[in-house]
Amino acid sequence: MKITGIAERVVPIKSDIRNAFIDFSQMTVSVVGIRSDIKRAGKPLIGYGFNSNGRYSQSGLLRDRFIPRLLNAPPAALLTDGGENFDPAKAWDIMMANEKPGGHGERSVAVGVLDMALWDLVAKIEELPLYRLLGERYRDGQVDEEVFVYAAGGYYYPGKDLGALQAELKTYLDMGYTTVKIKIGGASLDEDRRRIEAALAILGENAALAVDANGRFTLKQAIAYAEALEAYDLFWYEEPGDPLDYRLHAALASITSLPLATGENLFSTIDAQNLVRYGGLRPERDFLQMDPALSYGLVEYLRTLDMLAAHGWSARRCIPHGGHQFALHIAAGLGLYGNESYPHVFQPFGGFGDDIPVQAGRIQPPQTPGIGMERKADLLPELERLF
Amino acid sequence: MKITGIAERVVPIKSDIRNAFIDFSQMTVSVVGIRSDIKRAGKPLIGYGFNSNGRYSQSGLLRDRFIPRLLNAPPAALLTDGGENFDPAKAWDIMMANEKPGGHGERSVAVGVLDMALWDLVAKIEELPLYRLLGERYRDGQVDEEVFVYAAGGYYYPGKDLGALQAELKTYLDMGYTTVKIKIGGASLDEDRRRIEAALAILGENAALAVDANGRFTLKQAIAYAEALEAYDLFWYEEPGDPLDYRLHAALASITSLPLATGENLFSTIDAQNLVRYGGLRPERDFLQMDPALSYGLVEYLRTLDMLAAHGWSARRCIPHGGHQFALHIAAGLGLYGNESYPHVFQPFGGFGDDIPVQAGRIQPPQTPGIGMERKADLLPELERLF
Repeated sequence: MKITGIAERVVPIKSDIRNAFIDFSQMTVSVVGIRSDIKRAGKPLIGYGFNSNGRYSQSGLLRDRFIPRLLNAPPAALLTDGGENFDPAKAWDIMMANEKPGGHGERSVAVGVLDMALWDLVAKIEELPLYRLLGERYRDGQVDEEVFVYAAGGYYYPGKDLGALQAELKTYLDMGYTTVKIKIGGASLDEDRRRIEAALAILGENAALAVDANGRFTLKQAIAYAEALEAYDLFWYEEPGDPLDYRLHAALASITSLPLATGENLFSTIDAQNLVRYGGLRPERDFLQMDPALSYGLVEYLRTLDMLAAHGWSARRCIPHGGHQFALHIAAGLGLYGNESYPHVFQPFGGFGDDIPVQAGRIQPPQTPGIGMERKADLLPELERLF
Repeated sequence: MKITGIAERVVPIKSDIRNAFIDFSQMTVSVVGIRSDIKRAGKPLIGYGFNSNGRYSQSGLLRDRFIPRLLNAPPAALLTDGGENFDPAKAWDIMMANEKPGGHGERSVAVGVLDMALWDLVAKIEELPLYRLLGERYRDGQVDEEVFVYAAGGYYYPGKDLGALQAELKTYLDMGYTTVKIKIGGASLDEDRRRIEAALAILGENAALAVDANGRFTLKQAIAYAEALEAYDLFWYEEPGDPLDYRLHAALASITSLPLATGENLFSTIDAQNLVRYGGLRPERDFLQMDPALSYGLVEYLRTLDMLAAHGWSARRCIPHGGHQFALHIAAGLGLYGNESYPHVFQPFGGFGDDIPVQAGRIQPPQTPGIGMERKADLLPELERLF
C-alpha cells in the first residue's frame, strides 16, 4: 500500500463580506488530493483535503516542506504496524520532522490540509464514513448520529442594513438552523446593539443568537461590550480579545455571566493548553473553538482533546471553527458539542452535503465512505481537477 | 517617492549540521529586494532582506499575501507624513491588513523579511548605517559602537567527536569570540557532559560557554539537566523546553541558579508578553532571544521592547537569535545586550561584514548606509541577482 501522488491546487473563495478584523476578498483555499494504489471500482482511492478559511497561500509550505516529506518517506513508514492502512499519526511525525517547536501558524494549516486528506483516505480504505471510524477507534464504537450546527453569518458588508441582516438570518431559520451568529465590533456599540436587537426580533423564542468580536477588543472595550450584552440572553460572546491575551479572558470570565467562546486562532495543543491554564475560562459554561483543519489536523486535535480532559474539560464544550465536513465528522465521532456552519459563504467549501438537511438545528454526517466531500456538487469539480 | 518593484528569490543554505530538534539539510532562505525610485550615483536605491534561519518556504505567503499588499498600496500610504522617507510602521499596518489575530508563525517570517528590506532602504535614503538611524530615532542619538557577539556552533553532525568539537570552538576563539555555544539534548546527558567538559577545557579562564537544548526537554529532563549543568559555570542554559510551555520555564527558574535563555521561537509581541507574564523568568539573570527577522520585523520588535520595559525588563537582557546583520544594528542602535553569530554556518547569510573583525568578543556594526549586506562578498551576488 502506498501513496502514488499528491496534488495541490489553489482555488479562490472571493467574497465581499468582512468581520470586525478582516475582509475575505483576496482569500484562497489550497485543495489537496492524496492518491493511493488501492482501487475501488477500478479507480484509485484518493483522499481530499482543503484548508479552513482564515489563512491562505500555504502552497509554498505544502510544496517545499510538507508534501516532499510524505513523498520521500519509505512507503511502509506511513502505514499501520500491520500494514492494513495508512497511519495519520506516523504521517504526522514524518511531516513534522525537522520542524522547530513554537510559532504555530500557517504551517499548522498546511499540515492540517494533508492530515484531512489522509483521514479521508483512511476512512475510504476502511469503507466507513469518517465519524464511524473515529467512534470505533476512540469512543468504543459510540457515535452521535446528529450534530448540533449553528449558522455563522451576520457579516458586515457595504450597504447592509438591519433589514438585510434580518433577511439573512431568516434564511438560516428557513434552512433549519436554530442558532445563528452575527459579527460585532466592526461598528459602534450602539449600532451593534441595534443589530443584536434586530436579530433577536427575528429569532423569537425558539432560536438563539451568538455574537463574535473576532479578537478585536481591548480589555476595557471587551468589558464595556460584556456589560451591554448581558441585557440579552446570548448563546455566547466570541473572541472578545486577542486570542493569545489569556489575562484578558481571565479578567472577563471573572466578571461576566455571559458564556465566552474562543480558540479558533490557537493552532496547536500547547496554545490551547495555555488558554486552559491561564485564560480563566469556565468548563461548565464556556466554549472552545479550535479548528482541527487550521491546527495540524486531527492527529493534533486528538492530543488537544486528551489535554482538555486532563484539565477537566469535556469534549462536549468544543465547537470547532471552520464549517467544514471534516470537523462535522470529528464532532459526531468524538462527541463534541457541535460544529460551525457557513451556509452561504466560503463556497464551494462551506457547508455540508447538498442532500443532507439541517433539522431543528442538527445535521447528520454523510454516510459515504470518508469525509464525503464528493457529495457537494459544486466542490466535486474542484476535487476532480486535481489529478 | 515610491516603490518601483519588489523581487523575491529562494536560495538554499544546505548544511549537514543538526541540533537536538532538527537538521538543516533542506533549508532555504527567501531573499527580497525592495526597489525605490530614489537614486544614488545614478542607480535606484534597493533595500534588501532575507529570512532568518529556522523556518523557510515563505515564498507563497510573500508572493500571494504580503508583497501584493505593499505594491497595491497608494504610494503615499507607505511614506512618513512629511513624505521624506518610507515609513516601516505604516507599511506594517498595510501588510497586516486582513490578517487575523493569533497563530504567529511563518507569516511573521514573511513580514519580517519585508520589514528588514524596508529598514535597509529607509537607512540608505537617510545615508546612515541603520544602527545610527535607530539611535537617533529611539535613543536620543545614543548608540553602542561595539556589540557583544557570541559564536553559536557545537552542532551535532555525523562522525563529530570531542576533538572535532574542540577544534571547532578553537576556530571561534581564534576569530576573536570569547563566548561560544554548543548544542545539548541531542545525545545522552553523559555524552553531553563530556562535550561540555571538552568545550570548557578549550575555553579556559577567559571565555564562556552557553548550552542550547533547542526546546527538546520535558520538565523532568530539563530539571535533570539543570542539576547536572549547575556543576559548571555556564553563560546560559537555552531553550530547556517547549518555548510555549511557560509553566516549565517558571518551574525551572524557581529551582535553578543557572541563567536561562529563551524566546527565539516566540514570533510576536504577545507571545513574548505571555513568556514574561507566565514564564517566571528573572529580569536580573535571564536572557530573551526573540529574533526580529522571524517575528514581524523591527516594527514589532519595537513594540516588544516597549512591552518588556513595562514589565521591568531592560533591553540589555535581549540577545536576538539569528546571527544576522539586521539584529546587529538593532542591538547597537537600541542598546541590547548583544547578538548571536554563526561564524561558519547558514552561509552566505550567517556572519557580518567580511572586513570587520570580532575583537575580544565584540564587533562594530558596518558604517555603510543601511544594513550593509553588500559588504559580504558571498552574499552580494545573491542580492544583485534580484533585479
